Amino acid sequence: MKALLGGKGAGLAEMTRAGLPVPPGFTITTEACREYFAAGGVLAPDLLAEVDAAIADLEARTGKRFGDPANPLLVSVRSGAPISMPGMMDTILNLGLNDAVADGLARLTGDARFAYDAYRRFIQMFANVVLGLEHARFEAIIEDEKRRRGVETDPELPAEAWQAVIREFLALVEKETKRPFPTEPREQLVLAIRAVFDSWNNLRAIVYRKLHKIPDTLGTAVNVQMMVFGNMGDTSGTGVAFTRNPSTGENVLYGEFLLNAQGEDVVAGIRTPQPIAALREVMPEVYAEFERIARRLEAHYRDMQDIEFTIEKGKLYLLQTRNGKRTARAAVKIAVDMVKEGLIDEREALRRITPEMIDQLLHRRIDPNAPRTVLARGLPASPGAATGIVVFDADEAEARGKRGEAVILVRPETTPDDIHGLAVAQGVITSRGGMTSHAAVVARGMGKPAIVGAEGLKIDLEAETFRAGDVVVKKGDVISMDGATGEILLGAVALVEPEPDPEFETLLGWADRFRRLGVRANADTPEDAARARAFGAQGIGLCRTEHMFMAADRLPAVREMILAETPEERAAALEKIRPMQEEDFYGIFKAMAPYPVTVRLLDPPLHEFLPKYEELLLEVDRLARDPQADPARLQEKQAFLRKVRALKEENPMLGLRGCRLGILYPEVYAMQAEAIFRAAFRLRQEGVPANVEIMIPLVGHANELARLREVVDAAYRKVAEAFGAEMPYLVGTMIEVPRAALTADEIGRVADFFSFGTNDLTQTTLGVSRDDAEGKFLHVYVEEKILPDNPFVTLDTGGVGKLVEMGLRLGREANERLKVGVCGEHGGDARSIRFFHGAGLDYVSASPYRVPLARLAAAQAAIEAEDAAREEKVAGAGSSGM
Amino acid sequence: MKALLGGKGAGLAEMTRAGLPVPPGFTITTEACREYFAAGGVLAPDLLAEVDAAIADLEARTGKRFGDPANPLLVSVRSGAPISMPGMMDTILNLGLNDAVADGLARLTGDARFAYDAYRRFIQMFANVVLGLEHARFEAIIEDEKRRRGVETDPELPAEAWQAVIREFLALVEKETKRPFPTEPREQLVLAIRAVFDSWNNLRAIVYRKLHKIPDTLGTAVNVQMMVFGNMGDTSGTGVAFTRNPSTGENVLYGEFLLNAQGEDVVAGIRTPQPIAALREVMPEVYAEFERIARRLEAHYRDMQDIEFTIEKGKLYLLQTRNGKRTARAAVKIAVDMVKEGLIDEREALRRITPEMIDQLLHRRIDPNAPRTVLARGLPASPGAATGIVVFDADEAEARGKRGEAVILVRPETTPDDIHGLAVAQGVITSRGGMTSHAAVVARGMGKPAIVGAEGLKIDLEAETFRAGDVVVKKGDVISMDGATGEILLGAVALVEPEPDPEFETLLGWADRFRRLGVRANADTPEDAARARAFGAQGIGLCRTEHMFMAADRLPAVREMILAETPEERAAALEKIRPMQEEDFYGIFKAMAPYPVTVRLLDPPLHEFLPKYEELLLEVDRLARDPQADPARLQEKQAFLRKVRALKEENPMLGLRGCRLGILYPEVYAMQAEAIFRAAFRLRQEGVPANVEIMIPLVGHANELARLREVVDAAYRKVAEAFGAEMPYLVGTMIEVPRAALTADEIGRVADFFSFGTNDLTQTTLGVSRDDAEGKFLHVYVEEKILPDNPFVTLDTGGVGKLVEMGLRLGREANERLKVGVCGEHGGDARSIRFFHGAGLDYVSASPYRVPLARLAAAQAAIEAEDAAREEKVAGAGSSGM
Repeated sequence: MKALLGGKGAGLAEMTRAGLPVPPGFTITTEACREYFAAGGVLAPDLLAEVDAAIADLEARTGKRFGDPANPLLVSVRSGAPISMPGMMDTILNLGLNDAVADGLARLTGDARFAYDAYRRFIQMFANVVLGLEHARFEAIIEDEKRRRGVETDPELPAEAWQAVIREFLALVEKETKRPFPTEPREQLVLAIRAVFDSWNNLRAIVYRKLHKIPDTLGTAVNVQMMVFGNMGDTSGTGVAFTRNPSTGENVLYGEFLLNAQGEDVVAGIRTPQPIAALREVMPEVYAEFERIARRLEAHYRDMQDIEFTIEKGKLYLLQTRNGKRTARAAVKIAVDMVKEGLIDEREALRRITPEMIDQLLHRRIDPNAPRTVLARGLPASPGAATGIVVFDADEAEARGKRGEAVILVRPETTPDDIHGLAVAQGVITSRGGMTSHAAVVARGMGKPAIVGAEGLKIDLEAETFRAGDVVVKKGDVISMDGATGEILLGAVALVEPEPDPEFETLLGWADRFRRLGVRANADTPEDAARARAFGAQGIGLCRTEHMFMAADRLPAVREMILAETPEERAAALEKIRPMQEEDFYGIFKAMAPYPVTVRLLDPPLHEFLPKYEELLLEVDRLARDPQADPARLQEKQAFLRKVRALKEENPMLGLRGCRLGILYPEVYAMQAEAIFRAAFRLRQEGVPANVEIMIPLVGHANELARLREVVDAAYRKVAEAFGAEMPYLVGTMIEVPRAALTADEIGRVADFFSFGTNDLTQTTLGVSRDDAEGKFLHVYVEEKILPDNPFVTLDTGGVGKLVEMGLRLGREANERLKVGVCGEHGGDARSIRFFHGAGLDYVSASPYRVPLARLAAAQAAIEAEDAAREEKVAGAGSSGM
Repeated sequence: MKALLGGKGAGLAEMTRAGLPVPPGFTITTEACREYFAAGGVLAPDLLAEVDAAIADLEARTGKRFGDPANPLLVSVRSGAPISMPGMMDTILNLGLNDAVADGLARLTGDARFAYDAYRRFIQMFANVVLGLEHARFEAIIEDEKRRRGVETDPELPAEAWQAVIREFLALVEKETKRPFPTEPREQLVLAIRAVFDSWNNLRAIVYRKLHKIPDTLGTAVNVQMMVFGNMGDTSGTGVAFTRNPSTGENVLYGEFLLNAQGEDVVAGIRTPQPIAALREVMPEVYAEFERIARRLEAHYRDMQDIEFTIEKGKLYLLQTRNGKRTARAAVKIAVDMVKEGLIDEREALRRITPEMIDQLLHRRIDPNAPRTVLARGLPASPGAATGIVVFDADEAEARGKRGEAVILVRPETTPDDIHGLAVAQGVITSRGGMTSHAAVVARGMGKPAIVGAEGLKIDLEAETFRAGDVVVKKGDVISMDGATGEILLGAVALVEPEPDPEFETLLGWADRFRRLGVRANADTPEDAARARAFGAQGIGLCRTEHMFMAADRLPAVREMILAETPEERAAALEKIRPMQEEDFYGIFKAMAPYPVTVRLLDPPLHEFLPKYEELLLEVDRLARDPQADPARLQEKQAFLRKVRALKEENPMLGLRGCRLGILYPEVYAMQAEAIFRAAFRLRQEGVPANVEIMIPLVGHANELARLREVVDAAYRKVAEAFGAEMPYLVGTMIEVPRAALTADEIGRVADFFSFGTNDLTQTTLGVSRDDAEGKFLHVYVEEKILPDNPFVTLDTGGVGKLVEMGLRLGREANERLKVGVCGEHGGDARSIRFFHGAGLDYVSASPYRVPLARLAAAQAAIEAEDAAREEKVAGAGSSGM
C-alpha cells in the first residue's frame, strides 16, 4: 500500500489495524497527488468531495467537529511519500483553529495558555508552509513579546501574551498576503493539502530524490489525523525513540522525550529533551506500555523501528513508526542480532545490508565523540576520513606528499592533470562537481576520501585560501574531512580506525555460503595480495605487470628495451628486467597460493615509460636556442625526442599496446612468461603450490591469442626443462574490445579463460575515453539523464552487458570448460555484480578494499535470483491451478 | 578439373577431347605435388610407377621412344598451377636428349644444326632450372664461340659449333655439380618433375601468390607433353596470339610469331617476331586453320583466348590456350562486344569486369606509346599517373604545392604527420611499405597515384636525392609515375586522360539494371556533388560540415565560437558562421536535387580548429624566456594555451566530439540545422526540390538522438515559420560505435535512417586507431596473416559485420521504414559491397571516383546472390526428386 498511501499513511493504516493507539484520521493517496500535477495544480472536485466525506466520518468517529468551539476537531496534515524522505516535506499541525475555536478550546480544556499557544503555532506554521512567509518574522514578534514581559522562554508566556502575539501574527499575515488569514477550517485544510502536494516539488525534495534516485513521478500522499497534544501539562509529553541504538545497534530503547511539549519542540531543538529511559521514572506505566508496543512493532515489522509518540494527559498515542535509519555498524549488528533472536533469517539479514555500508565500515571515520567545528558540507563522494594541511595545487600536493606531509588537496574541481597530486594526498575536496565528477571517481578508485560539490567553500586559487562562512583557511592550515558524511572540519580531529564488530565477519561468512560467484582481487604486489586475502579474496583476477616496469630502479632497463634498435639489444635489456620480474611474481604467487593468480602480460603503450613528449620538446627547443649549450647533448636529446615522437599516438588507448606489443615484440612476452614460470617452479620446489594463469590483453582476433599462446607455451617448455618438472597453468585473454566478445567462439577455442576487462570494453563499446569524458561531458549525461549512470561505475547493461552475455555464451559454446570472470572496476560495484551473477560468470575481481562488498553483493544477487525463481514458481503454480 | 590438373593441364585435356591439334602428353596432378610436400620433398614410389606407365603409353601412341636414337621421344615439362601464374613457374623443353639421341635426331631429321641446338638448349635450361646453374655462364660460352667464329647471331652457328658448345656445357655442369650431366631420359624426367614441384615455393611464386591472395596450399600440376619443333626450318615456327586485342579489346587476332624458332626465342626477345597477320602471307593455310581454331576456342570458352602454338614442318600444333590477360579497357570492350555477339549475356559481362578495372579506367595513365626510361618499379598501390618535381619533405611539398607547382612526394615511408604534404602532391612514392602502408591507404583515399615499397630507390633524406640503379635524382628533378603499374619514370612522360569507351557506360548501365543497392557519394562541396552525379551517384550519403568550418575565412569565427565563455558570446560567433554555412548547403543541395543529401552535423573535436598545442607551447615558452617580449602578448598567449590545453584530449577519437558536442552546445547544432533548412527552403522557392536528411554523428544511446532531434525539429519549425512553408526531411544517425548497433532497436525508434560509419565502427569494434595502426602494426598483422585484410579497406565481416547485421535487424524490427546505408570507406570496396548487399542495406555511399566501381560491385553482388539462390533451388529440386 506504500505506493498509494505513502510510507506514513501505510504505517498508520497498519498500526490502526493492529489495534495500536494511533490517533484517528485518513489518507489522501499519491494518485490524487499525481492527478493534481497532471491537472496543472488543480484539486479535482471529486477529491474535494471525498475529503469532505472523510472529515464528516472523522467527526462522527471522534465526536468532535471542524470549527465547533464547543468540541473542536483539530488535525495534523503531513506529507507521506512512498519512499521515506525525512525532513524533505512540510507538515502542518493544529489545523482547524481560528479565534472562536481557540477560545472554545481554552474553555474546554481549562488551559488557555495551551489553546492560544497551539493557535499561534498553527498560524505560524500555516503562514510559513502554505503562505510562504518567513518563520523568523513570527519568531521576532514572540521575542518582542518575551522582552516586553521580561521572560526568557516560551512556556513562561501567559495566555494573554499569546493572544497579543496572535493578533500581531494575523495582522502580519494580512499585511503580507493582502488577504486575511483563512479562518474557515475546510479552507485551511484544502490550502494545506495543496501545500503538501506542492512541497513534492520544492528544491530540497528534488535534490534529495536526485541524490537517492527516487523517481520524480511518484508523488506524495497526505495524512490527515486528529491532533493529540503533548503540551497539556506535566502528564503530557512527546518524544521520538528507536527500538535499538541506531548508532551501535545495541538492543536497548534509544530516544528522547520532552514533557509538556509538542513534537516540533523536539525536532527544533529549542528545549533539551530527556533520554527515553527517564520516562520510566516519570510515567512508569506509560513507559512500560511504550516498551511493550516497541517490542510488538519490532516483531511485526521484523526491523528496528523509529517511533514518534505523544502522551496526552497520561494516554500514549503513536504518531508514526517506520524502519529506523541507522549507521552501517548498527545495521550489521542489528541484522546479525535479529537472526540470533529468530526475528529474521540469514537471507533477510544479508538483504538488509547495503554494499555501501560494507564499504563504509572499512574506512576510517571521524571519531563520533570528538568535538568538531564544521566548516562546510559537500557531497559524500568517497568514504574515509583524513586530517592534513590544505594545499591548492596538485604539484605542491605531490611535492609535499613525497616529503611525507599529510596533505588534503582542495580544488574548485580536478582534471586528469591533477592525478599525481591526488595520488599522494590523504583526501580531496572540490567546491564544484557531483558524485560522478573527476575527483569523486578517481578518489573512489584510489580508495581515499573525497568530498565534492562543497559549494560553501569559496576558493581563491591566487591567494591560496578558501573561505567557509566567516572562516578563512590558508594554505598550510590543518583541516579534517569525512568522506562518508561530507563534513569538512577545522583543525585536526580525532579519527577512528575501522574496527568492524564481530558481527561483520559473521555476516560475510553467511554471504560466502549463499553466493555462487567467486570473488577475487585485483592486486599487483605481495602486500596487496595479502590484504586482499585478509578481506576474503580467493585469488587474483588481475595482476598488472606494468607497475613493475615503472619502478624507479627498473625504468632505465625498460627504456633501454624500448629504445633498442635491434632484437639483440632488446634481448639484452630484457635480460636485465627478467630477474626483477621473477622476484615480483615469486612474492605474489606465494602470498596467494594455492589460489590462482591471473597475470596480465605487458599492456600499456610503450611511451608511457618514456619522458613526456611536451617536456622533451621544450628541453630541446631551449637547448637549440642556447648558444652555450653542448651540441652533443642537443643531438642526443633530439634523437631521443624523435624516438618519443615516433611512439606518440593520436589515440593511445587504441594504439600499439596490449597483445599488439606481444605480436611485434614476442621477446617481451617470452621474457615475462619465463619470469612467471621460473617463479612458480621455484615456489613449487619449496612446497608452495603456486597457481598460474597467464592473461593476454587486448585480443581482438583469435589468431592473436593463438600466436601468443605459442610464445607462452614455448617459454613454459624452456623453463620446465630447466627445472626438470611440470606444472599445470592456464592461458587466457581479457575480453576488452567488442570484436573479442563478438568472436568469442573463435577465441574461446584457443583460450582456457576469459576475463572481461569492462573498463576498456566500456570505453570501446561506447566510444568514450574515460579520461576525456569524466568531468567533460559524462557528468552532464548523468545529470541530464541521458545515461542512467556513469557507465564506468555501474555496468551499462543495455550495451556493454549485451556484449558480456554474448561473449560468455559464444565462449562457453566453443569451450565448455572455459572459466569466465570480470576484472574491470565493475567487479566491485554491487549493481554490476548482480548483473554478472545473472549472466552466469564464474567470478568477479575487485580492488582489495572492495572484496567484502563484492562478497555481500554476490550473495545478495544469488538470494534475489532465488527469490525471483521462487516467486515465479509460485505464480506458475497459481496459474496452473486456474 | 583445374584444381587437380592445373590450368594448363585442364586446358590441354579439354583441347584434346575437342579434337584440336595438341601434342600428346599427360599431366601429373596437384595432389601429387601436395603429397610430395607432405612427404617432405620425396616423390612417392607409386607416382614414379605411374609416370613410367604414362611414358610407356606415350611411346606407344607416338611410336617414339625415350632415349631411342632411331626415333627419340622428346618432351616438354611444364608447371601448371590451378590459378594462372604466368612467368612464375619454370619450364624445361627438349627433355630426353643426350649425346646419342642428339646424334640420332640429327640423322633422323637431316638437320644436325637443329638437333645440336635443341640439345644445347635443353642442357642450358635443365642446368639452370633443375641444377641451379646461372644462365649467363652458358651464354658466355656461346658468346665465346660466336666470337671465335666471327658471327653475330645464334642461327649463324653451324652444327659443329653447337657440338663444341655442348661439350663445354657438359664440362661446366660436371665441374660445378661435381657429377656428370644426367644422360638417362627417365632420370632427367624425374629430376625435372621435382624441380617443377620445388618451383612452387620459389620466391617469385610466393610473392605472386601473396600479391594475388592465392593460397599457398594449392600446389602445382606438371604437364609432360611430346615436343614439337618450330625450328625445323622455314616451314616451322612458333608464336603466341590473342583472339582479340588485349590492349584495346578490338575484335582482331593479335599476336606474333617467329619462323624457324622455338617458343623461348619469342619469350626471351632475342629475335624480333613478326605480327601474326604476316603469317597469312607466309603460310596461308596454316593461318586460315589457326583463325578457324581461334574462333572455335573463343566460342568454346566464351572468352578471349591467349594461344601458344608451334608449326612443325607445316603442321600446326596448339601448345596452350587460356583466357587472355587484358587491360581494363579491353576487358570492358570485349565483355560488351561479346554480349552483342551473343556469346555471353549481360550478367556474364558484368561478372567478368573486376571492380579494380573500373577504378583504373577513371585514372590518368602513362601514354602507352610514349618512350620511357623506367627508374624503378614498386607496388601499384593506388592507380593514376602523375608527372612532377621530386620533393622529399611534406612541408616543402605543401609549400610548393600551394604555389601551384606539381610535386611528387618521395619518402622512405609516410606517417600521419605527412598528410598535409600528401594532400597537395600529385602522387606519392615510398621505398618501404606494402599495399596497406600509410601512403598506400591515404593515397587511395584521396584518389591519387601511389607507388609503395619501391625498394630499388635508395633515398638519402639528408642529401635530398634518390638513387635508382646508376641514376641519381635530386630534389627538383622531374619524374613521372604510374600507380596502376608501379612504374617510376625519369622526366616528364606524356599522360593520357581517362576517356572511357562507350562500352564503359553501356556496362555500367547494365549494372544499374541488376543492382539492388543504391549508390550515393560522399561529397562536401557542390563540385564534388556534381562530379559524383556525373559518375552516377543518386544522392549524397555523407556531407561532412567540418571542412566548411576549416576554410580560412571562417576559422576566426569558428575559433570565437570555441573560445566563447558564455552562451551569448557563442551565439554571436555562430551568427557569423550561419550565413556561410547556408551558402554551402545551398550549393550542394542544388547540385544534387532531387536526390537526397545527408548532412552530418559537426563531428570532430573542437581542438582540431585551434592552433596546435605543441606550437603554442613552444611559443609561450619562448616568449616567457625573452626579456624583451611584451608581457601583454605573453599573457594573451598563455590564456590561449590554457584553453587549448583544456580542450586537448588523451584519445580525441573517443572524446568530446560528435553528438556530444551537440548535447553540450545545442546552439551549434541549432545553427547548422537552421542553415540547412534555410538553404533548402530558398531552393524550393526557386523550384529546386532540395532533399534534406540530417545526420547526428556518434550516437551511442537513443536519448542522445531523441534530444538532438528536438533541437533539429525546433530549428525546422522556426525556419518553416519564417518561410511560411513546409517541407519533408529526415533525421537519422550514424551507427559508428558498437553500442549504437547493440541498441539499434532503441535508436531505431527515434531515427528515420541509419548510416553505418564503418570507419569509426571498425576503430571502436577492434579497438584500433587507424592513424596509429596503419604503418605501425596493421601491415604486420596483414602480412603475417593474423588478419585476412586491412579492416579499414575491406570490412571485417566476422566482427564489424556482425554489428552491421545486428544493427540492421534490430533497427528494422523497431522501425520498418528505417532507411539504412553505409558511408564508411567500405562503401567503395567491392568485397565489402558484396557483404552490404547480402546484409540487406538500402545503399552504399562512396567517394565520387569510386561510384562507378560501387555500381558494378553492387550489380555483381546481386547477380552472385541470384546465382547462389538458383543453384540452391536446383539442388533443392534435385533432392526433392529423389
